[in-house]
Formats: sequence, C-alpha cells, structure tokens
Amino acid sequence: MPVVLVVYGVSGAGKEQVVDRLNKWFDTRGVETHAFWDETDEDLARPRYWRYWRALPPRGAIAIVFGGWYMEPVEQHALGELSDAQLDDEMNRAAGLEHTLSQDGALIIKLWFHLTGETQSKRLKKRRDDATHAESAARERKLAKRRDEFLAAAERAIRLTDTGKCPWYLIESDNKYYRDLAVGETLVRAMQQRLQEHRGVDRRAQIHSPVPETAETPSITILDHVDLSEHLDNDDYRDQLKMLQTRLRKQAWAAYEKKHSTVVVLEGWDAAGKGGAIRRLAAGIDARLYRSISVAAPTDEELAHHYLWRFWRRVPRAGYVTIYDRSWYGRVLVERVEGFASPHEWMRAYQEINDFEEQLTQHGIVLSKFWLQIDQGEQLQRFEERGRVPWKQHKITDEDWRNREKWDQYKQAVNDMVEHTSTGGAPWTLVAANDKKHARIQVLKTVCERLAQVLDSGADRQ
Amino acid sequence: MPVVLVVYGVSGAGKEQVVDRLNKWFDTRGVETHAFWDETDEDLARPRYWRYWRALPPRGAIAIVFGGWYMEPVEQHALGELSDAQLDDEMNRAAGLEHTLSQDGALIIKLWFHLTGETQSKRLKKRRDDATHAESAARERKLAKRRDEFLAAAERAIRLTDTGKCPWYLIESDNKYYRDLAVGETLVRAMQQRLQEHRGVDRRAQIHSPVPETAETPSITILDHVDLSEHLDNDDYRDQLKMLQTRLRKQAWAAYEKKHSTVVVLEGWDAAGKGGAIRRLAAGIDARLYRSISVAAPTDEELAHHYLWRFWRRVPRAGYVTIYDRSWYGRVLVERVEGFASPHEWMRAYQEINDFEEQLTQHGIVLSKFWLQIDQGEQLQRFEERGRVPWKQHKITDEDWRNREKWDQYKQAVNDMVEHTSTGGAPWTLVAANDKKHARIQVLKTVCERLAQVLDSGADRQ
Repeated sequence: MPVVLVVYGVSGAGKEQVVDRLNKWFDTRGVETHAFWDETDEDLARPRYWRYWRALPPRGAIAIVFGGWYMEPVEQHALGELSDAQLDDEMNRAAGLEHTLSQDGALIIKLWFHLTGETQSKRLKKRRDDATHAESAARERKLAKRRDEFLAAAERAIRLTDTGKCPWYLIESDNKYYRDLAVGETLVRAMQQRLQEHRGVDRRAQIHSPVPETAETPSITILDHVDLSEHLDNDDYRDQLKMLQTRLRKQAWAAYEKKHSTVVVLEGWDAAGKGGAIRRLAAGIDARLYRSISVAAPTDEELAHHYLWRFWRRVPRAGYVTIYDRSWYGRVLVERVEGFASPHEWMRAYQEINDFEEQLTQHGIVLSKFWLQIDQGEQLQRFEERGRVPWKQHKITDEDWRNREKWDQYKQAVNDMVEHTSTGGAPWTLVAANDKKHARIQVLKTVCERLAQVLDSGADRQ
Repeated sequence: MPVVLVVYGVSGAGKEQVVDRLNKWFDTRGVETHAFWDETDEDLARPRYWRYWRALPPRGAIAIVFGGWYMEPVEQHALGELSDAQLDDEMNRAAGLEHTLSQDGALIIKLWFHLTGETQSKRLKKRRDDATHAESAARERKLAKRRDEFLAAAERAIRLTDTGKCPWYLIESDNKYYRDLAVGETLVRAMQQRLQEHRGVDRRAQIHSPVPETAETPSITILDHVDLSEHLDNDDYRDQLKMLQTRLRKQAWAAYEKKHSTVVVLEGWDAAGKGGAIRRLAAGIDARLYRSISVAAPTDEELAHHYLWRFWRRVPRAGYVTIYDRSWYGRVLVERVEGFASPHEWMRAYQEINDFEEQLTQHGIVLSKFWLQIDQGEQLQRFEERGRVPWKQHKITDEDWRNREKWDQYKQAVNDMVEHTSTGGAPWTLVAANDKKHARIQVLKTVCERLAQVLDSGADRQ
C-alpha cells in the first residue's frame, strides 16, 4: 500500500527536525520527501493538484509531504488573500483527494504540530541565526505575527478534513522529545491498525459498502437518439475540412498566446473512425502545439498508482493541445465490462473523473469529449473491410470481435458514462459516425466552436 | 526497436508539412513529435541533453524531433554566437548520443530538407500571412537572411555527424510532391534494411565486434591500497559530525542560491554502511533541498529505454542535492558480474557514463562518488550481526550471501570501474569503511570540501 504522511503545523514547531528524524528511522529506500515550496513554471502551467499527484507514492512506498495540499490555502486565508468560502472549497477538494486515494488503498496520516505562543516566539527568535532560506524565513515570521488568524484558518481546515479514514493527529511540540516520541507512536499505531484491517480480509470487501444492483439494460438508451443517417457529400466535406482546419490553426496559436490548453477526448466503438478523426483534427494544428496520446495498457509504474495518476502525469502545459485516443473513461467502459475494475472501483470513478475534469476546466483548459456512434451493421462492414484490405489488416484483431459480442453491455456502459459525466464545463458530444466524413467535420467544428467561446470572451488564463 | 526521426533543414522547406503528412501516414499510436522550441525553466535548470533524453522513445515507438540536438548549435553558429570549435564540440556530443542510442538498438534517421535560395525567399514571403508564432517566424526570416552562414554551419554539422550507422539523407524540397515521396521512400528503405539486418541474427552478435578477453584478475587491485585500519573515536566523531553537518547546511543553501546542484553517489560492498553514511549526510541538509534515491530494479518503462534514461529522467533541478544509494554504476558492477549486461554493453558503459557525468559537471553540478571499502572479515561479521538483531534482519537476504561468494569478480569490476571512470570533474573517493564512524565523516568532509571549491570560486552557474 502507498503511505502518504502529511506534516504541517505552526512555524517553529520543528516539522523539519521531525522529517529529518523520520528519514533516520525509516530505511530511506522507498521514502521520498516533498516540500512544494519552490514551484517551477511547469507546475504553474497546470492545475495546482498536478504537483501533488506528481508526488504521490507508488504502492509500497512512503511520501512525506510538508504542508501538502493544506499549506497554500491555509496561509493565504491567514493573510486575508482567501475568503472563508474559498478556503472551504479548497478543503473539500483536499478531502476529495484523500478520499480518492484512501478508497484506492492508500494509508494517509496527517500530523499537526502545535506549539504554545510563548515557545513559538522563543524558537523563531533563535532560528533567525540559522542558515536557511531568507524568503521562507521571512514568510514564517509574517505568519507567526498573524498567529491567531493562522490558527483560525488551520482549525477550519482541520475540521473540514478530519475524516474517519483520514484523521488529523495533533502533536504537542513544546518538548521535542515528547514530540518525536508522539510522532513515532502515532505512525506505528496507524500502520499496525491498517495492516491488521487487511490481514486475511479482502480489501475491497472490507473498505466498501455493498454494491447496489446494476439496473436492467434499458432497451432504448441515449445512443439510440443519435441520427445515424447524417451524411456529407465529398465537395461539402472538402470545403468544410479546409475551412475548419485553417480556422483551427489560427485558434491554436491564439490559445497558445493566451495560455489556454485544449484537451480533446475521443471515445467510440471499435472501427468508429477515431483515428481518422484525430488525424483531420491534428492536421489543423501546428505540429509544435499538439500531442496525440493513444491510451493503451498501463505500464507497471502506472499500475502502482491510482488509475488517474497516469492521466495527471500527462496533463498538458498551458497553451498546448492534447488529443486522447481513448482516455480515463476506459475505467467505466472496458474495465467495467471486462471486469478489470470492481463495481466499487468503476462506480466511484464517475465522481473521480468529474473532479479531475473540473480541475482541468477551472484551470482554463478547454475540454471536449466525443463519443463516435455507429450501428452494429456498419461496424460489421468495417471489420470485414479491414480483414480484406492488406494495409488495414493490422487494425482488426480477435479482441475486436470479442468486444463486438458484448455490444449491449458496452452500450449500457456508454449510456451510464454519458449520463454521469456530462457536466457544464465538460459536456459529451455524441457524433453520428456511420458517415466518416460527417463525423470528422462534427469533431473539428465542435472543437473550433468551444475554442472560439473561450478566445472571444477575451479572458487570459491568469 | 525505438525509431528516432530527426527532421531539419532550411526555413521554408516545409518540415512542418512533412511532419503533418507523416502523422497521417503513420498510425498515430506510438508516434510522438517533439519540437524543443519553447523551453521551460525545468529544461533550463538541467544540462541541455536532459530535454532530448526526456523525448527519446521507448522500444517499439517512434519519435519525430524537429531540429533535434542540431538546431540550437547550428543556428547559434550561423548567427555568430558559437565558434567553430564550439560547434565541433557540440557535434561530437550529438554524434556521441546517436552512437549510444544506435548501439542500444535504436534506428536513427536524419533528414535534411534543402531548398534553392529562390524558392526559399518566395515561400517565406508567402508564409508571412499565415497564422503562426510571431517570434519563431521572425527568427526564421533572420536565419534566411544569413543563408550562407546557416548553410556553412549546417554543412559542417552534417559532415561531423554523418556516420555509417546514423547517416543524413538529403531531401530536395523545391517540389513538395517530390519531397514527400522522397521522405516516404527513405523511411521505408531505412526501416526495411534495419529489419532485414535483424532477421534471424542475434542483434548483439551482429552490431558489435568481438569482445576482447577480459584480463586476468590481478591479485592486488586499487582496493587493496585502502588503509582499512583508519579509525575514529566516539568524541572525535560526535564533534566532527556536528561541525560538518552545520557547515553543509549552510553550503547547501548557498549552493541553492547560486543554482549549483550537488550529486552524491554511494557505492560499496553489501553491508559497507551506505545507508548510515547517507543518513548522516542527509541530516546535514534542509529536507526541502535534497532527495535521496535508492536504485533498485528498473521499472518496465525504464527497461524500454537505454539504461541511462532512468538516470537522466531524475537529474536534479539546479540548486538541489540528490543522493544516490547505488547508481548508474550498477551497469559495470552487478549487471556485469551477474551477466545481466553483455560484455559489449558493460564495456561501452564506461564511455557512456563518462559522457553523462561530463554533461553534469559542465552544467555546474558538483558530483562526488564514493566507494565504501570493507574487507571480507568485516562483512561476515556484519552479515551475522544482521541475522541476529531483530530490527536488522530485513537488511540481510540470500542474495547478499550469494554476492559474497563472487567477491573476487566484484573486486575486479570495482577496480575496472574506478580506473575507467575517475575523471577530473568526477573523481572517485575510496573510503575506508571498516570503521563506520570514519567512513561517515570522510563522506561528509569530502562533500563539504567539493562544495566549498565551487562556492568559494564565486562562480554562479549561469
């Protein structure tokens, strides 16, 4: 299991000394410390949680995080830069991250180091002579002066994020021997307890409540309302393709200038024409500005993390375009239907995905999601054509035929997906794809329109 | 095999259009395009080749690189910012990278797009109206004005890097249909040829010349000259430890301010005390400033690349300290002795490692390498103690006992390693480690002294 140790508290309480000591106590193998105090422009060019996801440990490792996802909001609130409501939002997000990780099996231990006002001022006075970073030290002193505001913000943060699964532990730090002993005992207890919970019990059965029965497959789903007769003739197609690609090229550079990223997700039935649509989209963007990611089986590094980690790690820098050929929706499509994810896992994935996408769109990323819809007859025809044409044969495998047999289960999964994850900031577009030309134009046009909305609003990302 | 396609040439020759077309021709799965035109501060905070290593494809994938490692030096030379000698140095480094990758099985295809002066000015004039990046366009025009200087620099670069294994292909680009056809034919030929070479032949046997016989193990090696009787009593140890840790703490902050990174490599016999030495070193550095990396078995992402890739990917940002518990020297130690690397692989690793370390030190990284030497008797005693003491038992495994049986082979490997990779910028320090206290102090003292040299010289990294 991965262990995340959040270390935070009042200035002068000795968080650094505790971390030094922990590094002595632990075998340093598999332990990493992260501080988030010196952000790079790669951090700043992405949603804030990117840097935290980047620091999350794989299964079997321990990450010690200074301040974690608490430090920035709590300190901003203490300095009057964040309202109560904003702090609450941030804390809900923090609790959401911890819930997500803990559901996935992570042990999260949060330590709050407290100090009386008297000891604090003594310690900070003494600290002034030590070798340290001048800026950080100045910031610490500033916060110490607003001790009451800081403690109020921290109390609010702790109250909102002190959950049964991820509780806060208060460590009194006036006496450093007591402090270190308390830390050690807390860690041992938390780890032992978690290990005991796991022993001989199936983790999933134990952590989660029973699964609700899946509803019967409705005979008519949202997909049946897609008008598959939509069609475009060759001349129209060529004209519109050229016009839209020219427009997109300009928009992509304008979005680069304004630091808006674009994320395009293509999902669809096998042989629905995702690859062709992606190529027409990509041809409309300067090759320096886009990246196309084809989601296949995860690597072992990716498997050792929460399933969203592999998508977080590739969130584009501000100003760039990323096109996904399949995506994080695999969790609620193929992983659900094939049983690679348990019902608990894919069911909570809707919420996790909505949270993830909300962070992308709040950061100014323009997110478009497409489902390419074809009917079973059209798929059969395309499969057979792929089998016949020599340079298309590599595109058809036994797996495609097997998936086809599960058409109804996939249909149900797609329906649930669209229902649960169509949000204001990240709507699904269902594309009639029996006619490839129509589908390609619809994808291009939608991306252009969504970009235009953002660009015309004239808002820079920051 | 990984395929690296370098695309470069005169402005206006249509490199972007060719890349767009290639993205259409290839299945986009497994193809990534990299441009290196918009560096982040994470790029700039590391040796220049970090960004190239970051872009290298795993086995089975294709990377298209615009300009690659050629663009920056060639253009700087054309603009008079780089001397002939500097260009030559850069080209040797480029050829070195390609040699390294190609020895490892990569196919490297380099395309140079040429254009007559007349067509070039026509194209650039037309281009002015297109949507593109204003800055890049301005730079292109500047280079077009210095066409002769640019062509001279390019010719020099091509001459120095046009090798049998990694040749340049010249593509005349006045006619775009001819250009695209020539590109397609070149790629097909190069790939087919490489695939034929591989068919039914052992890759290693074919690429490499025969291995020279390894010399007999000399009875006396460099390790026998380490005076293992060195000893430190408790009081001395405590005093020096405190003094050196205080000094290091200040130095680490000073190095952070001046953007000097520090890399410390610890190698040594099993049970030589690497972990203990690392903890004493780490305790002298603010936890925000260092990272300790324990090198274990590579992940599958790492295995799909050249073995140095996993070390390149973790090169620290300027100003930080990274401590390695085992390192890239595994290639010439455990991988050599256990046969995980072929003789060709570990023999060329000396050169590859020297190149790698040279890039680190040239970038201002302070690199210290330690071999912790103990004798067989001392090791036996420590193994037995580890077996007895409950909280040390996890540190001793059957593998440790097996390694011990190969003492002489390891000794030979260590001797060769120290002989081949002790360079001016990155010397080895052999540490007498029968006395742990002595060893810890020597490591700390050496790191402090090497840092002092750089800090006292007063040079900022950039």
